[in-house]
Amino acid sequence: MLNMSASPLTAEDVYTAAQRLKSIVRRTPLIHSEYLSERYGCHISLKLENMQKTGAFKLRGAYNKIASLTEAERRNGLIAASSGNHAQGVAYAARAFGIDFKTRIYMPESTPQTKIDSTSRYGDVEIILIDGTYDDASDAAHEDVETSGATYIHPYNDWDIIAGQGTVGLEIMQDAPETDVIISPVGGGGLLSGIALAAKSINPDICLYGVQCAYERPSGATIADGIRVKCPGEKPSILLNQYLNDMVQVPEASIAEGVKLLLSEAKVQVEGSGAVGIAALEDQWLRFNPQDNVVVVLSGGNIDLKRLQSIIA
Amino acid sequence: MLNMSASPLTAEDVYTAAQRLKSIVRRTPLIHSEYLSERYGCHISLKLENMQKTGAFKLRGAYNKIASLTEAERRNGLIAASSGNHAQGVAYAARAFGIDFKTRIYMPESTPQTKIDSTSRYGDVEIILIDGTYDDASDAAHEDVETSGATYIHPYNDWDIIAGQGTVGLEIMQDAPETDVIISPVGGGGLLSGIALAAKSINPDICLYGVQCAYERPSGATIADGIRVKCPGEKPSILLNQYLNDMVQVPEASIAEGVKLLLSEAKVQVEGSGAVGIAALEDQWLRFNPQDNVVVVLSGGNIDLKRLQSIIA
Repeated sequence: MLNMSASPLTAEDVYTAAQRLKSIVRRTPLIHSEYLSERYGCHISLKLENMQKTGAFKLRGAYNKIASLTEAERRNGLIAASSGNHAQGVAYAARAFGIDFKTRIYMPESTPQTKIDSTSRYGDVEIILIDGTYDDASDAAHEDVETSGATYIHPYNDWDIIAGQGTVGLEIMQDAPETDVIISPVGGGGLLSGIALAAKSINPDICLYGVQCAYERPSGATIADGIRVKCPGEKPSILLNQYLNDMVQVPEASIAEGVKLLLSEAKVQVEGSGAVGIAALEDQWLRFNPQDNVVVVLSGGNIDLKRLQSIIA
Repeated sequence: MLNMSASPLTAEDVYTAAQRLKSIVRRTPLIHSEYLSERYGCHISLKLENMQKTGAFKLRGAYNKIASLTEAERRNGLIAASSGNHAQGVAYAARAFGIDFKTRIYMPESTPQTKIDSTSRYGDVEIILIDGTYDDASDAAHEDVETSGATYIHPYNDWDIIAGQGTVGLEIMQDAPETDVIISPVGGGGLLSGIALAAKSINPDICLYGVQCAYERPSGATIADGIRVKCPGEKPSILLNQYLNDMVQVPEASIAEGVKLLLSEAKVQVEGSGAVGIAALEDQWLRFNPQDNVVVVLSGGNIDLKRLQSIIA
């Protein structure tokens, strides 16, 4: 009988992704912070995926997915639904791949113009605005897939996407082999599940922690909108169940505090969902021993200046 | 007759400084920006000294100065006058040097508590608040030097300071030997003169541009307060006269625009004086050819969140 809960993904797939991404993505800095280390009583380093091209890690998975497709599949076009970092990642990756194929991105009509602009600037993707919520945009994207035969680029529930995001973990372990702990935001789980696979293959003793935002409003609105997805996807969950030490949830106020701290102490702009790791340390949901080398993944930096302003205020 | 206008400093001194600083300073990232490259029509990379320890390049010169002193000089103590990045640089460097000596930093009484705190957190420096302006604090520091025999750590008019700041130029040329142009903020000129010496020794054809803030208010108040000094010091000037291609001045509004652009496009927090290079490109005071590789030095990131908020607004 087939074991349905085993992942077909291996660390090899992450290495393959790293080869593909070599000249496409930025190898983002990993920076030790003396201030945060003192504040949290252990050695804290920050993996700055907020400084990735397009402002978030999403590009890694998207490019790896496109590279994994056959020529014929690519010719049939790509489709994604997203109003945020995934949209930009897919648009950038499609252009970077440099082959002439159609990419259609479905967004809810409420998407701020700035996000539409930052997606369309990465190439000639077609942006289709859908009346309704993200779910409506996602439904429209799936209908398109069924009628056109184009390939749907899922934001996280896809092995090639997970392998691409896993290159973040590879870079961490190559740049800082002494790492004992990695803390990462979790929305759909694509990022942390990939990191987990890569990091565990290099150091089976490494500890992995996920951080979600706690939902405080019935609307589900949160400053960590990049991880608005309420639970990890089926495929990421297979890896997370196997590798994760713990998952914690942090409240809005702590996330805002994390964004402020990262500005004033690390001089980096991080979006709400990128700051949840710091929020978890700030609230002592996660605490480590003085000798522990802890890497906190700052997954993205795309935050409207208006929203940033209201967080600072 | 002694040629008073020749610099006794050579590129060798910068290499010596780099050796001394190796385990002390952060080798800050040099990041290519596709967005800014498109915007300004040439290849733009950013040297992120805003992410230096203490949030600015000043630590480099301060540490090199302390390392250049004799044991006896250090025992007699160190003195500085500053309400900003130089104070933090000296305090950090003194602690990092790890030898038990007295460091006194004179600050005007109007210095915000946050800046006093960020200086004192780097070690047991004595902070002396002086009634009056920065000039009054500087006078008091010089009186102290005369009576105590301690060594004055000048923020820029000192060859050892200049050699230390020059390591920024060395890192740029090592990480991106193809660099054609370097743009740097200029206050007292310690940073750019050191960069110039180092960069010209590696590539004599390199072009160097300084950017000052234009003074629009009689008070001299500016959001670029890190380069409030109105003209470069005597020693930096000797090097700048020899090496500089041009010096431009940028208005307040453009500096604010630069700070905003760096937040939204590069995801980094930069203080006003650190953003003047981008302001000069934004205003087209400086324009380059499409094939030119231009490095813009972002010299510091220490900006109050309140001030940042008012810039974003």
